[in-house]
Amino acid sequence: MRDITDNPSIEADVVIVGAGFAGITAAREISRAGKTVAVLEARSRIGGRSLSHPIGDGKIVEFGCEHIGRRGAVADEMADAVGISSYKQYDRGYKLTDQHDKLVRWKGQIPRANPITLADYFQAAMRLERMRREVPEETPWDAPHARRWDSETLSSWMRRNMLTRGGRTLMSLLTEAGFAAPATEISLLHILNYSNGLGGYRAVTKVTGGSLERRLVGGSQGLVHRLAENIEEQIFLGAVVRRIEQFRDRVRLTGPGFDAVGRRVVITVPVPLAARIEYLPALPGYRDQLTQRLPAGSVIKYLSVYDEPFWRKEELSGTALSHVGPVQAVMDGSPPDGSPGVLTAFVTGPNARKLARLPGAARRDAVVGALTRIFGPRAGRPFELFEKDWMAEEYTRGCYHGCTPPGLLTEYGAALRNPIGRIHWAGSETVPIEYGSMSGAIDSGRRVATEILDLEAYSQMNGRTV
Amino acid sequence: MRDITDNPSIEADVVIVGAGFAGITAAREISRAGKTVAVLEARSRIGGRSLSHPIGDGKIVEFGCEHIGRRGAVADEMADAVGISSYKQYDRGYKLTDQHDKLVRWKGQIPRANPITLADYFQAAMRLERMRREVPEETPWDAPHARRWDSETLSSWMRRNMLTRGGRTLMSLLTEAGFAAPATEISLLHILNYSNGLGGYRAVTKVTGGSLERRLVGGSQGLVHRLAENIEEQIFLGAVVRRIEQFRDRVRLTGPGFDAVGRRVVITVPVPLAARIEYLPALPGYRDQLTQRLPAGSVIKYLSVYDEPFWRKEELSGTALSHVGPVQAVMDGSPPDGSPGVLTAFVTGPNARKLARLPGAARRDAVVGALTRIFGPRAGRPFELFEKDWMAEEYTRGCYHGCTPPGLLTEYGAALRNPIGRIHWAGSETVPIEYGSMSGAIDSGRRVATEILDLEAYSQMNGRTV
Repeated sequence: MRDITDNPSIEADVVIVGAGFAGITAAREISRAGKTVAVLEARSRIGGRSLSHPIGDGKIVEFGCEHIGRRGAVADEMADAVGISSYKQYDRGYKLTDQHDKLVRWKGQIPRANPITLADYFQAAMRLERMRREVPEETPWDAPHARRWDSETLSSWMRRNMLTRGGRTLMSLLTEAGFAAPATEISLLHILNYSNGLGGYRAVTKVTGGSLERRLVGGSQGLVHRLAENIEEQIFLGAVVRRIEQFRDRVRLTGPGFDAVGRRVVITVPVPLAARIEYLPALPGYRDQLTQRLPAGSVIKYLSVYDEPFWRKEELSGTALSHVGPVQAVMDGSPPDGSPGVLTAFVTGPNARKLARLPGAARRDAVVGALTRIFGPRAGRPFELFEKDWMAEEYTRGCYHGCTPPGLLTEYGAALRNPIGRIHWAGSETVPIEYGSMSGAIDSGRRVATEILDLEAYSQMNGRTV
Repeated sequence: MRDITDNPSIEADVVIVGAGFAGITAAREISRAGKTVAVLEARSRIGGRSLSHPIGDGKIVEFGCEHIGRRGAVADEMADAVGISSYKQYDRGYKLTDQHDKLVRWKGQIPRANPITLADYFQAAMRLERMRREVPEETPWDAPHARRWDSETLSSWMRRNMLTRGGRTLMSLLTEAGFAAPATEISLLHILNYSNGLGGYRAVTKVTGGSLERRLVGGSQGLVHRLAENIEEQIFLGAVVRRIEQFRDRVRLTGPGFDAVGRRVVITVPVPLAARIEYLPALPGYRDQLTQRLPAGSVIKYLSVYDEPFWRKEELSGTALSHVGPVQAVMDGSPPDGSPGVLTAFVTGPNARKLARLPGAARRDAVVGALTRIFGPRAGRPFELFEKDWMAEEYTRGCYHGCTPPGLLTEYGAALRNPIGRIHWAGSETVPIEYGSMSGAIDSGRRVATEILDLEAYSQMNGRTV
């Protein structure tokens, strides 16, 4: 990988903005097809929302994305293909729910609760599951009831379709932990669309057979690095793209200290950040208005490191949900060999927004306090506590992914991937399957590569510049 | 007014970004208090979302905002104070509703419809009116039921609280015309908050005694120009601000070809556009996430000009609503003396997004077709038809104002006006009263001026730099 300051003038067939899964996959595929590429990355690292932080001994903790889904998911197959192994998310033993008055132990996918609450939760989940089957994967906006389902939040749907406060509270908590945004801000249609991309509503919060099943040995970011092999010389770090100009037969990207020219450009950065680039000519209204409407979720991730995963000995899986907060969900984030022990704590949605505004010591106390309440005094003495606030990251500005409000999919969905002249769009929010995940990002990189290679082949076939 | 290219290096106590009502008011107030100001405007004109287009003979048509509300509204008082007169929106005679099967004539505020539809509409409107009284003007997020009301769209509230499809259709149409966004995308709490700022839910779509009562002689933009008198030399056109750096005791703004230094900066541009500036140090997460969540509405405005307001002779007011589209609302936009005749047609929300993607001739045909259907063949022969697509305007990107989705007010409301160090925020979306209007913008300009003058006075009193 090279520093942009040493390479102020770049030329390639295709210039790619962003070196996360989408950008690196696109670069890899286009490069393999014999075209030249240049990847411009604002940060001094590649990986985007994947960031595996070394903690010595070749071990890492995941500051960013970590679950690649079940066997056979796009990211899992890709990892296999390049020789990176995966391991199962640890979830043996009891899970815990931290309630205001007590700690509840349970097994299975859904927390133990009173039968009425559970019955209510399950009837609603089944209803969502039936509804999502009516939503076309590639074009959710074509579902028979798309407009109706996109006219409200999951929250208002729950109010009409669930009978108990307990059931609604449970679904709200699971949604918030799963989307890093509250049910009050997410379109019902998006919930169905998202479930669809994972193969079902239940898969959203499921370990075995669901989106939380597998993790990568060596960390998610390791897969990005592996995919970047052979194109490392084409990756330029520290390149903040500020302006994209389109001409008849090429594009020009500029930023502080550099200039890059290509036949086409792929933008893989999150949708709200794509708006922060200046375009010449200016983008059409519908594309610009899209960028105003797909905000990133809100999450701070904590990695609490112990000499061993002590909870396992107590027959605890490390998985917990909390109704008390500020932590809403905890999972075992230990390396494959279980050493050291790592608890990954997620502070999401409104809790994340509130916590981020407290001073560092208060944040730490609140999180360690929650872990202690749930896992006992040993959890209160981590030998290291890492914090990653994705909302504060200038080149991300929120995780896990775009939080789709009512109206977005039906009104602007198609704009997510329709090219504008020589500008093509990728990124994990532009896909029909596994929206917002590593698989989604990889898939989008492949899709955009094909899109461009086809156009270029056509242009050559016709002996002209398209 | 000066061109930025002739003034590459600027210094002032306070630098203001944006020369709309908010920016010019702030500059005027701060300048009157003895501080120096510099207003940086990206366009080659001032006025922001107000744009009065000359059509000869000293007459204008309004491409942008035009209604200053009723007597006594902030903008009305301001106009009075600087010697600009206002006149009443023409609404004598019958109004029309364009239905799929017929044209209905009516008088009063609410279209004629069957009694059940009307009863349903009125009970819902009354309920909204009762609810809005519980919402505190300055801090809507403190309403007793704020979280609940901010957890859903107006649309899902209507589904639960209205009994007839006719009633819901009517409220949807009025909302869409009034907010340039569909009821499916707007938070219920925002509807209440917005109504509050106008003195009641009914005022939203009301002429006499409501938000549509008065217009300015000579055009809205004329008021901005009048307010700019005496500070004209401090306004710099063509200044696109790309970066704002904060230091211990000053700020520095830079853009293509210029550099401006001040003690404080006021940003008045719409919230999504404020995100497109680079900040050093980077803004905190909660402010950045706010900018991802307050999209501008969607509207294209058409001004159809005739030799006279022929509809008046037919006892028509020029006001019409259409269920057919693409035009949803029409008003008489003629100058005070009724010459020429002007029909102002609003294409809003989903219709605007669709229409904007058609070729120019098809757009024109669709709009002229709608006007002909409603006002007869004479309406089909304008001697001029102006079109203003605010979504395509690079330095606006949507009108009338920010379309507040569920979750915004309760989660990010306070971030709308809380200063970040030496950066202060103004603009018509930052106010409790008359949100999104000229009055709101003026009010925000005054508020931010006081905010800054107080801080500066305090800093001098203490003999130090705060």
